[in-house]
Amino acid sequence: MDEVLETTSETGGEPRQYRTVGTRPVRHDGIEKVTGQAQYGADISLPGMLYGKVLRSPHPHARIVSIDTSRAEAHPDVRAVATSADLVSTDGIDDAGEALALKLQRDNVLASDKALYVGHAVAAVAAASPHVAEEALALIDVEYEVLPHVTTVESAMAPDAPALHDHLDPDAHGGPNVSVHEQHKWGDLEAGFAQADRVFEREFRTKTVHQGYVEPQNGTASWSPDGRLTIWCSSQGHFGIRDSAAKVLGVPVSDVKVVPMEIGGGFGGKLKVYLEPVAAVLSRKSGHPVQLTMSRTEVLEATGPTSGSLVRIRMGVTNEGRITAARCYFAFEAGAFPGASPIQAAAAAILAPYQIDNILVDAYEAVDNKPMTSAYRAPGAPIVVFAVESVIDEMAGALGIDPIELRLLNVAEEGSRRADGVMNGRIGARETMEAVRSHPHYSAPLSGENTGRGVGMGFCRNNTGPSTVVAHVLDNGTVSLVEGSVDIGGSRTAVAQQLAEVLGIPVTDVMPSIGDTDTIGYTSNTGGSGVAFKTGYAAYEAANDIAGQLVQRAALVWDVPADEIEYADGALRHRSDPELRMGFKEVAGMLADTGGPVTGRANLNPAGSLGSYAANIVDVEVDPETGKVSVLRVTIFQDVGTAIHPSYVEGQMQGGSAQGLGWALTEEYYMGDDGRLMNTSLLDYRMPTSLDLPMIEPVIVEVPNPGHPFGVKGVGEANIVSPLAAVANAIHDAVGVRLSDLPMSPATVVKALGDEGADA
Amino acid sequence: MDEVLETTSETGGEPRQYRTVGTRPVRHDGIEKVTGQAQYGADISLPGMLYGKVLRSPHPHARIVSIDTSRAEAHPDVRAVATSADLVSTDGIDDAGEALALKLQRDNVLASDKALYVGHAVAAVAAASPHVAEEALALIDVEYEVLPHVTTVESAMAPDAPALHDHLDPDAHGGPNVSVHEQHKWGDLEAGFAQADRVFEREFRTKTVHQGYVEPQNGTASWSPDGRLTIWCSSQGHFGIRDSAAKVLGVPVSDVKVVPMEIGGGFGGKLKVYLEPVAAVLSRKSGHPVQLTMSRTEVLEATGPTSGSLVRIRMGVTNEGRITAARCYFAFEAGAFPGASPIQAAAAAILAPYQIDNILVDAYEAVDNKPMTSAYRAPGAPIVVFAVESVIDEMAGALGIDPIELRLLNVAEEGSRRADGVMNGRIGARETMEAVRSHPHYSAPLSGENTGRGVGMGFCRNNTGPSTVVAHVLDNGTVSLVEGSVDIGGSRTAVAQQLAEVLGIPVTDVMPSIGDTDTIGYTSNTGGSGVAFKTGYAAYEAANDIAGQLVQRAALVWDVPADEIEYADGALRHRSDPELRMGFKEVAGMLADTGGPVTGRANLNPAGSLGSYAANIVDVEVDPETGKVSVLRVTIFQDVGTAIHPSYVEGQMQGGSAQGLGWALTEEYYMGDDGRLMNTSLLDYRMPTSLDLPMIEPVIVEVPNPGHPFGVKGVGEANIVSPLAAVANAIHDAVGVRLSDLPMSPATVVKALGDEGADA
Repeated sequence: MDEVLETTSETGGEPRQYRTVGTRPVRHDGIEKVTGQAQYGADISLPGMLYGKVLRSPHPHARIVSIDTSRAEAHPDVRAVATSADLVSTDGIDDAGEALALKLQRDNVLASDKALYVGHAVAAVAAASPHVAEEALALIDVEYEVLPHVTTVESAMAPDAPALHDHLDPDAHGGPNVSVHEQHKWGDLEAGFAQADRVFEREFRTKTVHQGYVEPQNGTASWSPDGRLTIWCSSQGHFGIRDSAAKVLGVPVSDVKVVPMEIGGGFGGKLKVYLEPVAAVLSRKSGHPVQLTMSRTEVLEATGPTSGSLVRIRMGVTNEGRITAARCYFAFEAGAFPGASPIQAAAAAILAPYQIDNILVDAYEAVDNKPMTSAYRAPGAPIVVFAVESVIDEMAGALGIDPIELRLLNVAEEGSRRADGVMNGRIGARETMEAVRSHPHYSAPLSGENTGRGVGMGFCRNNTGPSTVVAHVLDNGTVSLVEGSVDIGGSRTAVAQQLAEVLGIPVTDVMPSIGDTDTIGYTSNTGGSGVAFKTGYAAYEAANDIAGQLVQRAALVWDVPADEIEYADGALRHRSDPELRMGFKEVAGMLADTGGPVTGRANLNPAGSLGSYAANIVDVEVDPETGKVSVLRVTIFQDVGTAIHPSYVEGQMQGGSAQGLGWALTEEYYMGDDGRLMNTSLLDYRMPTSLDLPMIEPVIVEVPNPGHPFGVKGVGEANIVSPLAAVANAIHDAVGVRLSDLPMSPATVVKALGDEGADA
Repeated sequence: MDEVLETTSETGGEPRQYRTVGTRPVRHDGIEKVTGQAQYGADISLPGMLYGKVLRSPHPHARIVSIDTSRAEAHPDVRAVATSADLVSTDGIDDAGEALALKLQRDNVLASDKALYVGHAVAAVAAASPHVAEEALALIDVEYEVLPHVTTVESAMAPDAPALHDHLDPDAHGGPNVSVHEQHKWGDLEAGFAQADRVFEREFRTKTVHQGYVEPQNGTASWSPDGRLTIWCSSQGHFGIRDSAAKVLGVPVSDVKVVPMEIGGGFGGKLKVYLEPVAAVLSRKSGHPVQLTMSRTEVLEATGPTSGSLVRIRMGVTNEGRITAARCYFAFEAGAFPGASPIQAAAAAILAPYQIDNILVDAYEAVDNKPMTSAYRAPGAPIVVFAVESVIDEMAGALGIDPIELRLLNVAEEGSRRADGVMNGRIGARETMEAVRSHPHYSAPLSGENTGRGVGMGFCRNNTGPSTVVAHVLDNGTVSLVEGSVDIGGSRTAVAQQLAEVLGIPVTDVMPSIGDTDTIGYTSNTGGSGVAFKTGYAAYEAANDIAGQLVQRAALVWDVPADEIEYADGALRHRSDPELRMGFKEVAGMLADTGGPVTGRANLNPAGSLGSYAANIVDVEVDPETGKVSVLRVTIFQDVGTAIHPSYVEGQMQGGSAQGLGWALTEEYYMGDDGRLMNTSLLDYRMPTSLDLPMIEPVIVEVPNPGHPFGVKGVGEANIVSPLAAVANAIHDAVGVRLSDLPMSPATVVKALGDEGADA
């Protein structure tokens, strides 16, 4: 139990009044995970289970003239064949918009009339072994009419681009593939620029990147003849998977049970259904459970990465450093289906660290022949914040103002508004900037040639949503906690800590588990850094519910009115009679005889999760000959509200920084002219490894959230945002070139040095 | 949804005021079970799973001199070996009684110093296949010192019998193996017999019989290196298995999670741990999940059947039919370990249908060299009630009083006391007898030679205990119901009906499931016919909890005070404004926006389950040459309180009668002189099949229980009690011999006819 006594002075700030919150217990699932005993989706084995494989389009854009499954169906080893025709039909739906939305959602699972990207699922078979299933795919005859394709946002937005979808109006936004345009504006942009002494304008391009989770998508389904379907899968939210699968299959949500398995990473990429409805159809048709698992190539080719983009930033500033106007334009790829890109989240983030009186943000989305994009950690924010933070760095250099000072001169505060119009609550932008400024890294001398230092801010709005917690008291004085939030980054322990805090018991006496969709009440996805906030809040409420019931039991045992009893510090006490005292374990042992077991419960949909601000200091060394950028030192700062489990908070900050550094330097979807992804393995899709990065030093900033009982804000995302510009700014500091296209690969650096030479 | 509109007139009584209670919906688990998709313990498959086999004693009684596992441990195919030394040690326990109790509980799982029956588990091995494991058992060298054995209660009780246990005082009850003596008495026995005009006295013997569930015991365990153990098994109560396994393994209950699989029958025989702790030890030692499954021989030789017995009944009666005194003596086998026999339940049942002013009941238990007995449907009651009901039949014949009239002259009523002193609540003994008397079967003519009719009463007290129900409202207006009661006979639907009744929704809109020990709060075993009572009551409370929360939501939506809103007939209504009305589905769709999901919860330990009375009318034909007794017609009557799902109630009544008929006529542990069970397969252990029995007609009697919101009493057990004497009485009616030893096999009948000839 020493972990509950450990101090947390490394997180800064005042000593805590908490017993468990802010400590660093061993995570409940830790040993099972490091010893390989934790059960992931591909570990499920059911009696009579078959294996499925998916036939995928070899073309980036093609009309599907016909799919002939007869040879496959006739083969004795093939137990079932699935096509889009086995999924929900839109025939009976009167509302055209609704029918279209359903068709698009369905067609991403199995294409009906068109294949929209290389890897787009077209059909699937089930057989007794995955090898037989894979062989049998050759027995499905698909006739394609190949169409011209586009795989960048700029080519997709051209008025003469090949149109992916008939329903998009080619005249609405200037091209047949432009699917969304949103605008945010206030103030007087012209006047703002007129007030400026200097105006800076730059254009940025980023490539499609993938979340790169270790565990591929998988789905196992068993569809009982009674109509109830059970799905086991890897997801960031089994309720969301249930709802999507039910929709695509055309069945009520109450006919579907989704069992959450452990998840080997998601980062936003495991919110959508891919294999689950296919497994379900194959199970229904074969009468057996069916399991599908993606290869790495399938993951990269056919699950949602984030958007490639074009961003243009124009900002005006006075010589004193007051930013007077910002004109932002960005266009994101949606991939194959419209509405998938994170332009709203990007609009929230783009200017979030600052108060600027005159702004105009134009956000565009276009579809192209790549897999439908998915959320990726702080969706959209890294792209647009990379651009803004690069411009601000340029601005600071030009004005001769320290880059953090310049930011502090314009810092967003409680009551100011983000570009998307949302009013800030008790945010920690200033505290984060001040933590950077006062950190030794910021003023440490740089040594060596071609070395440089950059800083960048990051932001991500944190989400919330409905959440359910149920907790049962065991008679040995422990508590089993059932929650609906999939645990990706250690949240089951962070939630258990919040329950333990209220009850005054060691967190090791709480056994957290994630209930399936039949077992626990509706709980929204594990995304938007929301779990420690919303499900932690629900755990707090459930614990208080338990405490209230224990007071009633003590009233029965002591034969005194309940309002004379209080629960505090893990014990029941009579307010005036010091003789009357019972510890949690003691009363837990009396439950059967005082009315039965005790179950605590909470159902919430709490508002007020607030946003999180991050900042990175990055030191790099650039090899001017090869263009290789070596990352020498990284410090990541983030305001997380209150750090429930500082080790996980630090892990999130380090992990996000690592992903941001990979995005900055090495990761990209490298598309061939034929519309195929060229780097379809993790050997070629270059994520940073431990050999590529130094130890990343996390500095937790705590500005507690007044809307949460323990002050939680959320921690998972803003930390991926800040590294991108920090690297670009460090490269500029090192070799004097300002890079505006990601990734800043050796070739890009060499080219920039050759094109421009150093500007300083 | 037609099932909720179906009438239930066949259950007799008034038309119901209920919408769902009393109807016969398809059971939620029905289709999965009949199509083979339901998951039983042996269906579990885990990555890296090993298989275990148990080495069992070939001797009925032997000192274990040594167990040498070194050859097995050295074999490359053996992954782990377990002996009793791997289970909990009693060394540190100061309380001698506690240490002894723990030793005995442990030694039934794996013998330490002594093997007490043929089949007693001595060691176990785990290997990659069950066949390799079985072969490897030969590598374990056990040195036994064989001791003399006893396998009947009478020989076990002899003062010079070989002693099984050192701790039993040979002088306490007249022999070294007599482990318990309990006595119940009131009134003045001498005076009672003095008031009698006639006294009847007989002696009865019954054999050990087994529950005969279809699914053998199994256990799969995965012991994580973090100390948490997960067990999958077939049981009548996963919380009980958790508690027992934790005790035998010497770990806290909170370190053990037990996942209930579907159960292929239990009848009381699946309350104890056998394989689960062995699988756990093998998992801990091998680092892999381990699965064990019993063969049928292992089930019969090494799991708990019920006791063989000796019963003596002496009863006095006036010529008018008033029973004035009853002197009862019975002695039950406990099998290998003391305290296992159901003498208390037998004492509750023995005279339960009657009010008798002067009684003395002496109940004895003795240990012998057979497997430790377990509960078997109405534990103990069939044995002793067989005796009493035979004597009452003899009495009625001698007095010339109709046997049901004689019973009605002495019938137990509310306020009278059972032999064990418990005061009767609103019982239905009279109504059950009256239903027999007025049933056409009772007065139907018998045709044919050597045919006869008998009646017998049955009783079983119904148990209760703690129970937890949690229920989550889905946004499509359905409800997922999580309970802790293992469903053996359809209880998940009977519980769901009680929830649906309160909410006014179709039972098909309720998805019931059984939570594991981490997922749901403590719930006592599925036994004593208690689930429809206690967990049904909890479902009622959870539904009311939901209704109350929905009222709060409606108050929010309508902006009116909550106390102006009522929930009834599946809808929320404003008490005075008829415009304000919302159905359950409608409000369910609004939950996320009105505060989050809604979860109902109930924790109960309700008293007042009352007892259940049954009666059988049985017609038989006896072949005097072969002794074969053919069962021609059977009617079973039972007061069940309120029949929640009449089809399951009828199924229980029919199933119990079938088991009672098997016990009466064909089933027995046939022990060799060497102490071995001779009939170790279901070919030789003769349970009745559908070819042996006629359709059994059930007649539900409903005397609602005022202590339950829907009047439930419990239905699973009293029906096995009444057939035994009914058959004996019918045989007497047919051929004039009164049989007092079970089973009334052809040989027994022929012998009786030869010994006595017909007495009428």
